[in-house]
Amino acid sequence: MSSAQTQKKGKVLLAYSGGLDTSCILAWLIEEGYDVAAFMADVGQEEDFEAARTKAMACGAVDFFLVDLKREFVEELIYPAVQANAIYENVYLLGTSLARPVIARGMMEVAKQQGCDFVSHGCTGKGNDQVRFELAFYGLDPSIKVIAPWRDPKFYNRFAGRSDLIKFAGEHGIPVTQTQAKPWSTDENLFHISYEAGILEDPNTTPPDDMWKLTTSPQKAPETPEKVEIEFTKGLPTKVTFPETGKTVTDSVEIFLALNALARKHGVGRIDIVENRFIGVKSRGCYESPAGTILRVAHMDLEGMTLDRNVRALRDQFVTTALSQILYNGFWFSPEREFITASIPASQKTVNGIVRLAVYKGNVIVQGRDADEGLYDAKFSSMDELGGFEPTATTGFIEIESIRIKAWGRANAKRGQAGLTPKDVYHRE
Amino acid sequence: MSSAQTQKKGKVLLAYSGGLDTSCILAWLIEEGYDVAAFMADVGQEEDFEAARTKAMACGAVDFFLVDLKREFVEELIYPAVQANAIYENVYLLGTSLARPVIARGMMEVAKQQGCDFVSHGCTGKGNDQVRFELAFYGLDPSIKVIAPWRDPKFYNRFAGRSDLIKFAGEHGIPVTQTQAKPWSTDENLFHISYEAGILEDPNTTPPDDMWKLTTSPQKAPETPEKVEIEFTKGLPTKVTFPETGKTVTDSVEIFLALNALARKHGVGRIDIVENRFIGVKSRGCYESPAGTILRVAHMDLEGMTLDRNVRALRDQFVTTALSQILYNGFWFSPEREFITASIPASQKTVNGIVRLAVYKGNVIVQGRDADEGLYDAKFSSMDELGGFEPTATTGFIEIESIRIKAWGRANAKRGQAGLTPKDVYHRE
Amino acid sequence: MSSAQTQKKGKVLLAYSGGLDTSCILAWLIEEGYDVAAFMADVGQEEDFEAARTKAMACGAVDFFLVDLKREFVEELIYPAVQANAIYENVYLLGTSLARPVIARGMMEVAKQQGCDFVSHGCTGKGNDQVRFELAFYGLDPSIKVIAPWRDPKFYNRFAGRSDLIKFAGEHGIPVTQTQAKPWSTDENLFHISYEAGILEDPNTTPPDDMWKLTTSPQKAPETPEKVEIEFTKGLPTKVTFPETGKTVTDSVEIFLALNALARKHGVGRIDIVENRFIGVKSRGCYESPAGTILRVAHMDLEGMTLDRNVRALRDQFVTTALSQILYNGFWFSPEREFITASIPASQKTVNGIVRLAVYKGNVIVQGRDADEGLYDAKFSSMDELGGFEPTATTGFIEIESIRIKAWGRANAKRGQAGLTPKDVYHRE
Amino acid sequence: MSSAQTQKKGKVLLAYSGGLDTSCILAWLIEEGYDVAAFMADVGQEEDFEAARTKAMACGAVDFFLVDLKREFVEELIYPAVQANAIYENVYLLGTSLARPVIARGMMEVAKQQGCDFVSHGCTGKGNDQVRFELAFYGLDPSIKVIAPWRDPKFYNRFAGRSDLIKFAGEHGIPVTQTQAKPWSTDENLFHISYEAGILEDPNTTPPDDMWKLTTSPQKAPETPEKVEIEFTKGLPTKVTFPETGKTVTDSVEIFLALNALARKHGVGRIDIVENRFIGVKSRGCYESPAGTILRVAHMDLEGMTLDRNVRALRDQFVTTALSQILYNGFWFSPEREFITASIPASQKTVNGIVRLAVYKGNVIVQGRDADEGLYDAKFSSMDELGGFEPTATTGFIEIESIRIKAWGRANAKRGQAGLTPKDVYHRE
Repeated sequence: MSSAQTQKKGKVLLAYSGGLDTSCILAWLIEEGYDVAAFMADVGQEEDFEAARTKAMACGAVDFFLVDLKREFVEELIYPAVQANAIYENVYLLGTSLARPVIARGMMEVAKQQGCDFVSHGCTGKGNDQVRFELAFYGLDPSIKVIAPWRDPKFYNRFAGRSDLIKFAGEHGIPVTQTQAKPWSTDENLFHISYEAGILEDPNTTPPDDMWKLTTSPQKAPETPEKVEIEFTKGLPTKVTFPETGKTVTDSVEIFLALNALARKHGVGRIDIVENRFIGVKSRGCYESPAGTILRVAHMDLEGMTLDRNVRALRDQFVTTALSQILYNGFWFSPEREFITASIPASQKTVNGIVRLAVYKGNVIVQGRDADEGLYDAKFSSMDELGGFEPTATTGFIEIESIRIKAWGRANAKRGQAGLTPKDVYHRE
Repeated sequence: MSSAQTQKKGKVLLAYSGGLDTSCILAWLIEEGYDVAAFMADVGQEEDFEAARTKAMACGAVDFFLVDLKREFVEELIYPAVQANAIYENVYLLGTSLARPVIARGMMEVAKQQGCDFVSHGCTGKGNDQVRFELAFYGLDPSIKVIAPWRDPKFYNRFAGRSDLIKFAGEHGIPVTQTQAKPWSTDENLFHISYEAGILEDPNTTPPDDMWKLTTSPQKAPETPEKVEIEFTKGLPTKVTFPETGKTVTDSVEIFLALNALARKHGVGRIDIVENRFIGVKSRGCYESPAGTILRVAHMDLEGMTLDRNVRALRDQFVTTALSQILYNGFWFSPEREFITASIPASQKTVNGIVRLAVYKGNVIVQGRDADEGLYDAKFSSMDELGGFEPTATTGFIEIESIRIKAWGRANAKRGQAGLTPKDVYHRE
Repeated sequence: MSSAQTQKKGKVLLAYSGGLDTSCILAWLIEEGYDVAAFMADVGQEEDFEAARTKAMACGAVDFFLVDLKREFVEELIYPAVQANAIYENVYLLGTSLARPVIARGMMEVAKQQGCDFVSHGCTGKGNDQVRFELAFYGLDPSIKVIAPWRDPKFYNRFAGRSDLIKFAGEHGIPVTQTQAKPWSTDENLFHISYEAGILEDPNTTPPDDMWKLTTSPQKAPETPEKVEIEFTKGLPTKVTFPETGKTVTDSVEIFLALNALARKHGVGRIDIVENRFIGVKSRGCYESPAGTILRVAHMDLEGMTLDRNVRALRDQFVTTALSQILYNGFWFSPEREFITASIPASQKTVNGIVRLAVYKGNVIVQGRDADEGLYDAKFSSMDELGGFEPTATTGFIEIESIRIKAWGRANAKRGQAGLTPKDVYHRE
Repeated sequence: MSSAQTQKKGKVLLAYSGGLDTSCILAWLIEEGYDVAAFMADVGQEEDFEAARTKAMACGAVDFFLVDLKREFVEELIYPAVQANAIYENVYLLGTSLARPVIARGMMEVAKQQGCDFVSHGCTGKGNDQVRFELAFYGLDPSIKVIAPWRDPKFYNRFAGRSDLIKFAGEHGIPVTQTQAKPWSTDENLFHISYEAGILEDPNTTPPDDMWKLTTSPQKAPETPEKVEIEFTKGLPTKVTFPETGKTVTDSVEIFLALNALARKHGVGRIDIVENRFIGVKSRGCYESPAGTILRVAHMDLEGMTLDRNVRALRDQFVTTALSQILYNGFWFSPEREFITASIPASQKTVNGIVRLAVYKGNVIVQGRDADEGLYDAKFSSMDELGGFEPTATTGFIEIESIRIKAWGRANAKRGQAGLTPKDVYHRE
């Protein structure tokens, strides 16, 4: 180790959180002979960045970089996900997955500027985030070298428990917050917060009320619904209006913040699931995705009004599914992601209009929608009047559609497998 | 017309609702020279069947058949849909679609028993139900003949408006209910009720509070959450327990009714959408699917715990999607439905366990789940401890997964298209 | 009829073939009171256009239009199909389907220029082409009116057989070719020729040797293979070289013609199938697609070398499948086609390189391929040397991939369903 | 090492080929302190099993096991693949992939019987086979331990080249065949032979004629086509008839051998591709799959005649694709494979009938097919006569199908994006 300290191994840019783990990693990397710069991304999490900077420098960092990535997080990642209705396993809105690419890219830009040979992170060896970070690093620069201490036996055998980290911190003058650690881990950004590990590892344990940080409990949320109108242009929210106050927002980040505030107040966006990680294990996670939940409801509703049926079906089966897996598994910087997102604009050009919603105690209730694309036409669908097309046309349609079905019915009859099974009880008079 | 009356054209079994339309159709068919028997299916709708019988016979029906199809509705249609998480366009739980096959089959059984040459229905020429009924009829008996008056110019030109029907009813001694018709149409069964047409044809009109029939408004629902535990066996609900009262139900129909009662009380299951009909027009529909909504949440949650990741992904992308379209479009009695449902049991054999839920003002909240399939193993997923596999294995996994990504990164670099775009603002100190 | 002749109903643009059917339709439409202009598209079929013009004018056409659409056929339709490896039911290369959109568009342009109120065609009421033409017409101009005589009882009841047409032709001075009609129907263009109906309706009848028009029989093809090299740029053939003669072609239409000549000489591109028409009936068709067959082999081979695995898999499962159905069913001018083709360029940007082929008696044999995209790297794949990555990485990869599999194996064992079934016979010594 | 020799580490069952690599591995494992038994599977490869046995025992094996797995290879693996038309990346018929599960299972049975703690194989660290074998081992027994010497630095650093293996063989009395090693590797079984590595690593090198072992070159194949008729029952070949000789075979293995003989004689089944391995690298492979190629053509043809259109489309997109990837990647013993194959029987129940083929110089030519399922009905498809349904029905069908298309056309027109682009050149007279 002394030789490591005397002969420098190169410069590392470390994804730094300000917490105990990455502070110890920072000091350990220095001990291992690296120069270490700390990197933090502001993706909207609640964080004392100045305190983190001070701590990183105290740990021996040669430099500290804070990059504000909120706008690109919203516009480059969240927005395509909204357009594609991305969701993992029908429930998870991908909040952590969406932030990783912008963080990794911001980090690689600094690493390049600063001539770093290595990047490092504090992700564990069992989670998704290590994969998401590292695949992003490699996609952006295939020659980058990654140090993952929690997968390095030298590190993880030395720091077998939290007490080892605390001891090490004490020895290296790393300030340890005295507050009791929560019995779960979290990851927070503008889009969401996640909770996992600790007491949540028993999937039958109901999360305690005070775990949920972003949203009011539906039970404690206001007794009165609050209305909001969201205007979409080519599938993206471009204007949010609160009719009760007349307040209007149009900036992408502001829209997101305004919807977050609304949803948080009304208890919207909590989920609790057992999901399948990329590495093949099941894990339990709880999430709060306030604005994302409202946007999903609104966007899908407007697509009902403005998107062609067959485009929607193909997009759902193809783009939504593939993009969600790509995001979850960490393949944002990949050829398949480029391929998949290339088709999103073609699916959204008619998704223009306004959705009116009420938000109430965890519910997002569609109250109406308006659009001028001409794909909805009451004249065609009205049950109450003729119009649009002749009823006799449907007779021809059904006759043609039934050709295959009749052929199958005849084949069944031939086999004695007709669908008709006798029923014995008729209430007849 | 007199010649029609003198020379009988054959016997028709009419899907009868007891309402004005099908009563007039009944009388009109008789006028056209047919013998007409009326058929009603009890699929759980709120209905005075005895009154309907009396009315049908008063209209001149030669016979009246009432068949109780609730159990086969639940067990043969609803249950596979629950197992497959069937949903149309991400929102609609297919309540009407699910009832049509059992009704059509019940009707064809009576038609066969009674030697009917024709079947008839009162569906309009623009909706999905005409297609669902007729494709089912043809699949069950390719030689059956269908009379669809609302697509027959002779009928629809004569009955251009409701007043024409009322006038005809008066002339034929058909009792007309004096109550004001609701400004929308409904279809009700054990699973759901639908609302469409009338004032709902403006998709920006918020449905009036008193439209919703099955569920309490979330705002008027109880202030206290109510708990329920649902046990699934091979993906099917086999036991429902209400822990607060100790009540337990295990019969399939009873389970459904108990969950309906719970959901209705707590305002669960309302939706309002613009959907794409099979005939290619968009239409606006509102639905209440109380028990179905709870079962969907619970079943999907348990699958997170008990279903292999890759089985789930394949099932979601193909079986769920295909079955939902098949149901919606009316192809239950078809070779593709047989093919698709054949794979459901193979996807559900591990879906065994209990989901604990709280129901509160429109929300269905998962509180925990328990299963003994061994697919969830905290040892493997725990972030807090080593176990299950070596962290170094993940390094190899990421290295292999990154081979393609690095190749792409190198190709991008060669083209000068690297993913790194310069950012100009760093908050650095 | 005389009143029809005195009061003109408007102007019709008729898709004219020069044959008996469309000549009779032309005269019949005039008899029905329309002004009729004849339209022919040159999509590369072998045809005496001048004779057709003379015949149309003799039949009473007010005008005759011939449009050369070969280039747009190749560049706008065939090329995307080559890029997407479009194929229907694994066998049919869609030659007729590909021509219909350019013909329909060319026709609608003339109809618009000439102020026609109607378009008409001679397609039968049972085939795909009527659908392809009419959906294209409606997509290009939703207000166009279509006359389809073979679906008009007034026409088809009058012309129940070929003799009725011949008689009508005689009465109207329409010249009838004395040559014996072939016992099958054909459709020919630059891409292919199709044969159907007549004696081919028995799917067990082997097509007679003299039916095949475009290609030499493999048995009579040259005894010596002939070589060709095809260079692709972004998935499109941009240069074809015949190494044995040094001949090179680069123009899109010329490339197609050169490959057609090569394939025809060597008996490449014949197929004989029973396929599923859009209207739900099965029909037997024989096809010759000479150049298309060579291009498919070459393009798919080059994709092996230059296209990322996951992009290929996603493209195959969704774009290839969807585009093939869209083309076959006649939905080229549709929102779903716009959506699907939008993703093609993103899939083809790395598909650059040269494929070397030998063509011999019906076979298209890949002899090698060369590309400089860097996705193929012998260092990584070589079994004979270390390189690219550490063999130990694969151990980690397999360990992670086996997590799910082991969990399943343990669950099976618990159920007593392990995959091991006893075998009784071992040849052991 | 001496300590390793004195203290036994346990018993290993080694997948033994009789070649230099696995003979050295056998001796090396003994040197490492293991008891080693050798295992060989007869999956139809051309092999001197007796010589291999002698060699294994000479190398120090404690036992030698030969298991005949040809029948289960054909019936349990090849047959479902034929039913599902399994193919990887549109070209590769999966011959090696199909054999691995039966070999792995045969091996695990012996390992269990013999109380082996370990299994071992001689696969390299870069290929697919290591993954296929090991995932199969783990799926069958999650607790089995695998020794993969070519991924063990201790082994691969010692045996860096072929000369090291030869030297080691000499030192351990392992007989080394003096024949010059071929400049490529092969894997052979009843279904196919593969060639890769060596000179084939340059994807632009044409394989030498004498590489191809199973099939006659098309150029040297007989000048006369040979006929064969294959009868399928529920999608499986149950009878093969050679009409020219009257010879008939019905046993599953015999059918496969007979078709192999026919195809080999006529040069059928060669391919040369660059494919994507599971570990993410591209590699070049050449394959001969004689009988498999004939069966694929015949089975797909019969499906055209006997399989419903929509079942076929769903099966193609879902089962064929997924099963092919599952096989290629080595997940036969997995929950997703169980799920996918569960749907195959439902897709094949109507696939009954006879296909008549001619085989000639590399071509497999369909000459006709016959089936009695009633799904093909010339009355419905005939262009020459009315029948089956009214032509006017198609008018209704097209009208309904065009509703969406017209809506899109109107929306385009509103945007000024109509599909009509002006053409300037008309050849008009």
